[in-house]
Amino acid sequence: MPGNYNIDTPDDLRNLPISSLDGLCEELRSYLIDHVASSGGHFSSSLGVVELTVALHYVFNTPEDKLVWDVGHQAYPHKLLTGRRSRFYSNRLLGGISGFPSREESEFDAFGTGHSSTSISAILGMACAAKYRGENTRQHIAVIGDGAMTAGQAFEALNNAGYEQPNMLVILNDNNMSIDANTGALQHYLTELTTGKHYNALKLHIKKLLSHPGQPDKWPVDVVRKLQKTVKGGLLRYSNLFEALNIRYFGPVDGHDLKKLIHVLEKLKHIPGPKLLHCVTTKGKGFAPAMTDKEKWHAPKKFDKLTGATLDAETTANKAVTFQAVFGDTLIELAKRNPGIMAVTPAMLSGSALTKMKKEMPERVFDVGITEQHAVTFSAGLAADGMTPFCTIYSTFLQRAYDQVIHDVALQKLDVILCIDRAGVVGPDGPTHHGAFDISFLRCVPDIIGASPMDLEDFRNLLFTAQASKGNGPFAIRYPRGAGVSAPASSGFRKLKIGKGRKIRSGKDIAILSLGPVGQYVKEACEELKEHQLNVAHYDLRFFKPLDETLLHEVCRQFSSVITIEDGCISGGVGSAVIEFIAEQGYHVIVKRLGLPDTFAVQGTQQELHELYGYDKKAIVRLVRRLAVLV
Amino acid sequence: MPGNYNIDTPDDLRNLPISSLDGLCEELRSYLIDHVASSGGHFSSSLGVVELTVALHYVFNTPEDKLVWDVGHQAYPHKLLTGRRSRFYSNRLLGGISGFPSREESEFDAFGTGHSSTSISAILGMACAAKYRGENTRQHIAVIGDGAMTAGQAFEALNNAGYEQPNMLVILNDNNMSIDANTGALQHYLTELTTGKHYNALKLHIKKLLSHPGQPDKWPVDVVRKLQKTVKGGLLRYSNLFEALNIRYFGPVDGHDLKKLIHVLEKLKHIPGPKLLHCVTTKGKGFAPAMTDKEKWHAPKKFDKLTGATLDAETTANKAVTFQAVFGDTLIELAKRNPGIMAVTPAMLSGSALTKMKKEMPERVFDVGITEQHAVTFSAGLAADGMTPFCTIYSTFLQRAYDQVIHDVALQKLDVILCIDRAGVVGPDGPTHHGAFDISFLRCVPDIIGASPMDLEDFRNLLFTAQASKGNGPFAIRYPRGAGVSAPASSGFRKLKIGKGRKIRSGKDIAILSLGPVGQYVKEACEELKEHQLNVAHYDLRFFKPLDETLLHEVCRQFSSVITIEDGCISGGVGSAVIEFIAEQGYHVIVKRLGLPDTFAVQGTQQELHELYGYDKKAIVRLVRRLAVLV
Repeated sequence: MPGNYNIDTPDDLRNLPISSLDGLCEELRSYLIDHVASSGGHFSSSLGVVELTVALHYVFNTPEDKLVWDVGHQAYPHKLLTGRRSRFYSNRLLGGISGFPSREESEFDAFGTGHSSTSISAILGMACAAKYRGENTRQHIAVIGDGAMTAGQAFEALNNAGYEQPNMLVILNDNNMSIDANTGALQHYLTELTTGKHYNALKLHIKKLLSHPGQPDKWPVDVVRKLQKTVKGGLLRYSNLFEALNIRYFGPVDGHDLKKLIHVLEKLKHIPGPKLLHCVTTKGKGFAPAMTDKEKWHAPKKFDKLTGATLDAETTANKAVTFQAVFGDTLIELAKRNPGIMAVTPAMLSGSALTKMKKEMPERVFDVGITEQHAVTFSAGLAADGMTPFCTIYSTFLQRAYDQVIHDVALQKLDVILCIDRAGVVGPDGPTHHGAFDISFLRCVPDIIGASPMDLEDFRNLLFTAQASKGNGPFAIRYPRGAGVSAPASSGFRKLKIGKGRKIRSGKDIAILSLGPVGQYVKEACEELKEHQLNVAHYDLRFFKPLDETLLHEVCRQFSSVITIEDGCISGGVGSAVIEFIAEQGYHVIVKRLGLPDTFAVQGTQQELHELYGYDKKAIVRLVRRLAVLV
Repeated sequence: MPGNYNIDTPDDLRNLPISSLDGLCEELRSYLIDHVASSGGHFSSSLGVVELTVALHYVFNTPEDKLVWDVGHQAYPHKLLTGRRSRFYSNRLLGGISGFPSREESEFDAFGTGHSSTSISAILGMACAAKYRGENTRQHIAVIGDGAMTAGQAFEALNNAGYEQPNMLVILNDNNMSIDANTGALQHYLTELTTGKHYNALKLHIKKLLSHPGQPDKWPVDVVRKLQKTVKGGLLRYSNLFEALNIRYFGPVDGHDLKKLIHVLEKLKHIPGPKLLHCVTTKGKGFAPAMTDKEKWHAPKKFDKLTGATLDAETTANKAVTFQAVFGDTLIELAKRNPGIMAVTPAMLSGSALTKMKKEMPERVFDVGITEQHAVTFSAGLAADGMTPFCTIYSTFLQRAYDQVIHDVALQKLDVILCIDRAGVVGPDGPTHHGAFDISFLRCVPDIIGASPMDLEDFRNLLFTAQASKGNGPFAIRYPRGAGVSAPASSGFRKLKIGKGRKIRSGKDIAILSLGPVGQYVKEACEELKEHQLNVAHYDLRFFKPLDETLLHEVCRQFSSVITIEDGCISGGVGSAVIEFIAEQGYHVIVKRLGLPDTFAVQGTQQELHELYGYDKKAIVRLVRRLAVLV
């Protein structure tokens, strides 16, 4: 923060007089705008919690007191105030600091986050540990958004906290948004709470009753006032959603009124047991464009901080058609033909490119909130009733619905089409968001069909094939974040054979089996290898389950060396499926598997990570040349 | 039901006069008592919903109207009334009908269940499908227990239902129990609702206020009454937990008052939108012992229906020490030495043998409700604060917490000890409950240590080793339901080397690598094979991650044929890990993998299933003899 305050630690902050904190907030905000304008990244959430962050570190004795940021993309001001100012330029870059809280990075990050709705569980664990050890003065704070509050885990944790009654404070950061506008009844309820609608309605009833024609002037003002107060107290005490779970409710309070916040937090410090402070904030606060279009500004690319105009030049890469765009358009196209198709998304309407379909056919798109578990079983319910749901979930979030995929979908052989977006490495969001494990964790589940398209045309055809394969049970399609090749014509579909791959190119020295868009690297590598007089065969597996056994027999009979490549972990991945086949069949073939190694992949651009983990074009060329010596 | 009513379908039921339904309920109940007394099975839950089941089929037009039973172990009366009377003797047996609802089994089972808290999601899917198709008269009913209501997915679904507003009815079957007594704030709240505590407290306040000394006799009775009514209406309307989520709340109603139930359900049929009926029932209703000791009678073995005495003779098998018993005792022993140890269970206190520890050291055992997601992150929170949590979850339910294991535990390398109970096939609970997938889905997660003990002594040592390995990150130990061999002495522990297996017996023809208690089959098989002049080596891998590479090198250098065996799916399992190693190292070894094939395993006894799926002693002998011909 090049400015007047030079805050390196919360201790510095606590030495400032309250009067100068508003200035600090302004400085933080302008730093954030500068940084994200020049580098991109999560934005609006952080702008919305500047005052809250300052107030929290001012009032609480971090890192001694424990502070957990739910999801964590709102933690930029927290990072700036806790010693990461000088490294903040490297935010989300390869080798840089994380865009999320990370225990490895700082003692001020009491718990690493990234996926939503874990903060209350985590802070409850710490609060219970403190209670057990008799540490009664330590404070435990979780900051969670109203969107994250819709996920079941938050409710599970509140229910448990209300029972255990340790000393903890949940700050409900109510900005009326997930990444997209929030849906769900809870949202409506929170709005009613903030507007006092319940209480006002009841007050009106009582007022009417008291002005009953038979009883005019009989009600002394002080009694009426007391009566209203009693009723209000009763409503708050006995009737609030959180109070029902035995969590004391406070608020709502204006989350941008710093002095008020500090005052309230100071008071809450001395109230034992679990409590919730309902804090109303504005996402994007302080940057006008972000306050207007909240979805767009959740995590913008570089922009002009004066006009708000996006700065990225329209490079070829930018203009390239993405898997997401093809998904959104194709689904509309298919839905027009097939009245059974519905789309389900757990709060990723825009990220999954479903906004357009929601506009065109609102009754067929369900944004069910940040609820992966529910999203999958809800889709199973639709399928059990004869519909054809496309349930779109990012690979990393599908981990949240694993049991539902097994128990509610696969076991019942229901025709749910699982669209696994963001499969493979995703880039700057890093290890919490890479879609590394889905092939491994789905491959062991019986009766699932699993595929991944090498290009956009193939993707269209897979989407078509999935909805045309009713009665075959669940059909999973994994595809990466970002651009694909061979943008398809917008008309025409081809039904693909389930479990059949294809030969991309013949060869004689070595065979490469690829799954998904990394097949493009193989194509390029094969071209380059020709120059080295290496004639490499290339097969696109297309399906990781069931495997194309005919193709594999052909390969094993013809080649003594095989390379597999996938954008996912190799432990248990499709390469592993191939060697399972080879072992079963008793072939003697050398198999080398390319993909993510058995560590959590770091952050970086997708390209950087493919290179780092050795499955880009260069790595393929290198491996083939090494193997060729042996063949 | 050998009796007076001869109900084969709900149509028969609907032809009965209301006056004869009480008799039918009695008959159903006595049939259930007879059946479970002679065969064992889920019991008390079914006894508690006899009237509710009769009322539902009487009022609603099943199977046209959709009825989903959450968890489903309370669906015995439903099965008896929907055409499965004559096959009920085969309940939970190999080849028999399922102990849970199953779409495959009957059109009256609108959705298969087994795991808790999916019913609202599923019925919401069907209700939304009907709404989309304009089918306005069809009814959609989910019956869910108060225990199942604590799981986050139920909340996710309610939140979504309150937003979507389709026509559906949730029946909250409030019997104040999960399998064990319910914990959590929700339970407390429901009790307050049924006893009218909120409203009464507020009424008292108002009464006091109105009898204010300055205002005696000024309050006409009718106004006071109206005032109270207004306040009551307001409380119900604006303040109920379910109403807060925009679900209309009705009740509480006595779930054993059949006529009242029918009357209420008839009325609810005509109220559009999502609604919840709070129905209070008694688990075990109609069988005195079950009403007294609810935990014991959740799913009893055979018993004398007059005395309630358990009938199973104390056979050797019965007396054999179980993994569960060793777990419970060992954890207490370790906790006495290590003050950092805590136990966490998602509502499986007795099933996981933690009851004794809860009694001895209540502050160190957390029953967090049916909340696997929360249980794991809560454990991560404990670990992040320096504690050593043993988080005990059945393998099949750990699927619910997969993301939390990856994202909150492994990624942060937190010392959470995952005790994976009921790993491998579990027996009569069948496909919804087998622990088939845990090796495959954990093996791909970086930084997890995964083990399985071959015998009870090894189990004790693994539990000891896990808590003595602080700083190594997550440590998972999988163990089966039921008895183990070599009951250990109760004193002394040995710290095991992480990632090291052991040689059980030398040999020269073929090597068998086993993981877990199925190693006992291998031991027996090796003895028998000696008689066939086959000298088989046996290694206990003990760890499925990391693999013992030294051991594997030794095996691969010495043997050309290897068999792996595990009580879990072979797709991606430990056998797959072994062949990954062999492929990487370039060994030419024939590997045959024994374990569960790529289908959902059926129900049956554990022994029956080991035989059916070809990994019992006989299967091993058979395979070795076949391979020996080739060697």
